[in-house]
Amino acid sequence: MTDEVLKKFAQAVLRVGVNLQENQGLEIICPVDKSEVAAALTKVAYEMKAKIVRVRWECEKIDRLNYLNASAETLSEIPKWLIDSKNYLVEKGFCYVAIAAEDPSAFTGVPPEKIAAASKARGKAFKKFYESVMSNGIRWCVVSVPTKEWAQKVFPASADAEKELGEAIAKTMRLNCAEPVKEWEKHVETLETRAEFLNSHDFAALRFTSGNGTDFTVGLCDGHKWLSARETAKDGLPFVANMPTEEVFTAPHKLKADGIVKSAMPLCYEGQIIDGFTLKFRKGRVVDFSAEKGYDALKHLIETDKGTKRLGEVALIGKNSPIAKSKILFYNTLFDENASCHIALGKGYPTTIYGGENLTFSERAKRGLNDSIEHVDFMIGTADTSIDGITKDGKTVPLFRNGDWVI
Amino acid sequence: MTDEVLKKFAQAVLRVGVNLQENQGLEIICPVDKSEVAAALTKVAYEMKAKIVRVRWECEKIDRLNYLNASAETLSEIPKWLIDSKNYLVEKGFCYVAIAAEDPSAFTGVPPEKIAAASKARGKAFKKFYESVMSNGIRWCVVSVPTKEWAQKVFPASADAEKELGEAIAKTMRLNCAEPVKEWEKHVETLETRAEFLNSHDFAALRFTSGNGTDFTVGLCDGHKWLSARETAKDGLPFVANMPTEEVFTAPHKLKADGIVKSAMPLCYEGQIIDGFTLKFRKGRVVDFSAEKGYDALKHLIETDKGTKRLGEVALIGKNSPIAKSKILFYNTLFDENASCHIALGKGYPTTIYGGENLTFSERAKRGLNDSIEHVDFMIGTADTSIDGITKDGKTVPLFRNGDWVI
Repeated sequence: MTDEVLKKFAQAVLRVGVNLQENQGLEIICPVDKSEVAAALTKVAYEMKAKIVRVRWECEKIDRLNYLNASAETLSEIPKWLIDSKNYLVEKGFCYVAIAAEDPSAFTGVPPEKIAAASKARGKAFKKFYESVMSNGIRWCVVSVPTKEWAQKVFPASADAEKELGEAIAKTMRLNCAEPVKEWEKHVETLETRAEFLNSHDFAALRFTSGNGTDFTVGLCDGHKWLSARETAKDGLPFVANMPTEEVFTAPHKLKADGIVKSAMPLCYEGQIIDGFTLKFRKGRVVDFSAEKGYDALKHLIETDKGTKRLGEVALIGKNSPIAKSKILFYNTLFDENASCHIALGKGYPTTIYGGENLTFSERAKRGLNDSIEHVDFMIGTADTSIDGITKDGKTVPLFRNGDWVI
Repeated sequence: MTDEVLKKFAQAVLRVGVNLQENQGLEIICPVDKSEVAAALTKVAYEMKAKIVRVRWECEKIDRLNYLNASAETLSEIPKWLIDSKNYLVEKGFCYVAIAAEDPSAFTGVPPEKIAAASKARGKAFKKFYESVMSNGIRWCVVSVPTKEWAQKVFPASADAEKELGEAIAKTMRLNCAEPVKEWEKHVETLETRAEFLNSHDFAALRFTSGNGTDFTVGLCDGHKWLSARETAKDGLPFVANMPTEEVFTAPHKLKADGIVKSAMPLCYEGQIIDGFTLKFRKGRVVDFSAEKGYDALKHLIETDKGTKRLGEVALIGKNSPIAKSKILFYNTLFDENASCHIALGKGYPTTIYGGENLTFSERAKRGLNDSIEHVDFMIGTADTSIDGITKDGKTVPLFRNGDWVI
């Protein structure tokens, strides 16, 4: 990205994304080889009068060596100071920007059970923090920038894959227009109109069907709420947790999912690729599954805890979303989830049920909201997907035909 | 550095430097743009059966933006989790490698009082950790690798400054020979012979004179011990805390330094350059000082606390040391301190008085050992420096003539 694009990127992320306030702290989670992005965000943050900027650096090269060589037991030891460093953000009223730029093949060849053990340990250790994040106790935003390894995976035949991926990302982020921040305001309003339509119907369930064999009905939580790009944090300030975002999403009922779901795109989970997979649900629970690729990783994901066998999110995206139309397979959920309807195994967002942020875990469970230490989206919408909303009195409202909105 | 040199580097640092043991944890402190060095160290660490490797990333670009924009008060807030993350290393028996590759001009233009405030806050916050480090409660090693900014400062006229600096560092690290680890063993023994000679005389004081106006007598601690490259950690295992190292060093008495000391080389302190400076000592204390460049930074250093007005180390290096002979000004204390005799303002090493590790602070003070939250070396040896050892019965033993050893 050029300096100019990088500045627009930083402005969009800090204004629209985390909505950084004067005298607020900012944490940036950044790959070590993208320090120029952290620096661009830091500069704009101080122009917006941030109090302090902290960067949490990530390095998949080192992570890979640790995964390959340290024992699962050692990898599962999460130091208390590391847990405290996450909770610190909530306590001190920071917001955070996470730059997700994983190499989709970073952990190829690592025993999946090691990754699963470490991931589970982190999930447990950071439970309090994730609960705050998913209840909007902190304003946060996940964004992405190209890295060499990732770009080569997306554009294997390109002479300058990193540049090409950078341009694709800039497009999805609406950075090519004169005033990206204004463009985002408009976009957010369009999505909100859709969410309002869905909320007004208060559907009991959704039924997905498509030519690949998907035939799946998912019940929704009692008092579920459809959300889109913009959410409201506990402090009352709006923020956009994902950039780009094209989805409207809500909370499935953890006991109400039945039928067969076929994956529509590869899933990159913890540096491993899972592809061509099928999940069979009964009463909300995965009762059978298969995968053409990455079966072990899928198995470990599903078996992480009780909650990873059930659903925590259902999201609707038409095949004419800008990301879907780009026809690029990004191997990165932030983008790919915005190209296709998707569901998530694991924790449901308390914010997707009315008043959910202020309920106890057992009150949420009574409403049907799933809990887990994980939350993993995967894509199920195809070019011929049909979706019907089923009302509480059994009527059917067509929502999608041939992969796109009909409302 | 080529992959082969990098591997030799990692082997020398982990075997000779920190003496990494099987099933021990390793922390690497590494600039974000040197992840290949952290990866090389990590690989060799696991070949040596390390338990786990953690990397603490540093980024001067972000530090600079924080220094420029955050308030001194905010910069002085050190989170408890960060303090805990340092103490964790000692508690869990880690060793650590610090890669010092600062850009000598990283913080040019930053108000020195901000840097001083932050540095003082860190010194206080990490006091327990630094005490462990300086009492050899942990095995540690400071090493260096070239960075672009630093290399350009050292070789401003070079077409490939980074490569040139890499080669210079490799030479000082003895990486060009077939078996660097063996070469280091020999070198360490030579330095130990010198330390033994000095210990056998148990000098009361040293007198430094040189043509630039230095005329300075420094008393030594009661029961001081001359050390060199190899030290012994509290767990009984040897380690080498600096690579390269050419010095033999001991503890000056904090109340016994008198006369004028002229700096022999520029000092790079917290990203600022202090040059052409003079310190006047009376009864161990700096009573006057001047500097041709970086006066404010020097002032802030000296005024950090009570201990930064007094001395914590005196080290002897001949002008024919390989680093001195290279005639390269590295703008990095790790190298430059090995080109010239030096003294340090600030904390004395408890290990440089016999039994010092097990004494209380007041017992150490009675022996004359200085305490502070800082320890900053600066170079005073010139090509014509003379040094005499003064014995307890007032006899004079010539140690240096014309800048080099005569023993």
